[in-house]
Amino acid sequence: MLQHYPSALLERAVDEFAKLPGIGAKTAMRLVLHLLRQDNEAVEAFAGSIVRLKKNVRFCHICHNISDSDTCEICSDRRRDPRLVCVVEDIRDVMAIENTQQYRGLYHVLGGVISPMDGIGPSDLKIESLVERAENGTVEEVILALSPTVEGDTTNFYLYRKLVPSGVKVTVIARGIAQNDELQYADEVTLGRSIVNRTPFTA
Amino acid sequence: MLQHYPSALLERAVDEFAKLPGIGAKTAMRLVLHLLRQDNEAVEAFAGSIVRLKKNVRFCHICHNISDSDTCEICSDRRRDPRLVCVVEDIRDVMAIENTQQYRGLYHVLGGVISPMDGIGPSDLKIESLVERAENGTVEEVILALSPTVEGDTTNFYLYRKLVPSGVKVTVIARGIAQNDELQYADEVTLGRSIVNRTPFTA
Repeated sequence: MLQHYPSALLERAVDEFAKLPGIGAKTAMRLVLHLLRQDNEAVEAFAGSIVRLKKNVRFCHICHNISDSDTCEICSDRRRDPRLVCVVEDIRDVMAIENTQQYRGLYHVLGGVISPMDGIGPSDLKIESLVERAENGTVEEVILALSPTVEGDTTNFYLYRKLVPSGVKVTVIARGIAQNDELQYADEVTLGRSIVNRTPFTA
Repeated sequence: MLQHYPSALLERAVDEFAKLPGIGAKTAMRLVLHLLRQDNEAVEAFAGSIVRLKKNVRFCHICHNISDSDTCEICSDRRRDPRLVCVVEDIRDVMAIENTQQYRGLYHVLGGVISPMDGIGPSDLKIESLVERAENGTVEEVILALSPTVEGDTTNFYLYRKLVPSGVKVTVIARGIAQNDELQYADEVTLGRSIVNRTPFTA
């Protein structure tokens, strides 16, 4: 699309916003014009928030979660159970599991899943430090909580083989019919597995 | 949604992005994590582009279009026809019309349309300066190019009454069936008007 911008500064800002994932040129323009209508302080606060995050962000040296210090809140919380480590792809998964309030162990943020199509191999992920954690004697169970995709399953299998020598128990989160899903629309793999892995009924 | 952010800096940045129109908390998180994966220079370039725009942006003193100087490129272009002024809502409309390469006159950016529902009255728009332009003797025709909505039509009517005393010709952009639209799906108003306002066939 030929675009004749009335201002080089505007064009530059729109170009920067359009680099964000899922943001096209028209949305970028809409966001930039929105910010332009805000006062100076609001724009500085917006821009400053991301610059400050980028400059000062730290990652927990144990679980690799985003943190404001060297050891994250969860890893330094002595009420959490250090015998359990839940492996997730991304910090968003940590937040999602925390929101359930069903888990009191620790985490390990891989930083992705093995995906040859995207050029992501095992060495791009925090796998070595996971194996070290499994070998240090405290950890008794590693829970694999990756998304049930081809890449997630591949990564689960790779991690399982890496973790077996350490002697820890390796489990995977339950797969089955999601709450409020209609059975007739469930895929065959999920439905089949939900029958094989049925659990005792509790009233 | 209860959200336990692992970092206050992250939470702040996500909050700022979620203030943007059409960006929810999940999208904001995705955008922030994307920027966090870029290098420092890229993040500075992103944040700097919007701060620089906000600080240095100017608006043309004639047509109110965004500009890098006091008079915009279009208003200062002597090859443009100063007898024609096209009234638009927004700078995006200027860009859209420029892209058609079918118009060689000048513009007037209203900055919105009259919308009592949103608390926007005539005094919030650049109407007085439009009337002044119409009265200064050079302008012969004012083309109303607002969107054919209730608000746009209301504004057109208001502008028409304001412009009549100056003696300029007031026209409105053609309304009809859009290119590649199927006739049977056109609304009745548009279809009816397209027959009343039919034009001579040119091969």
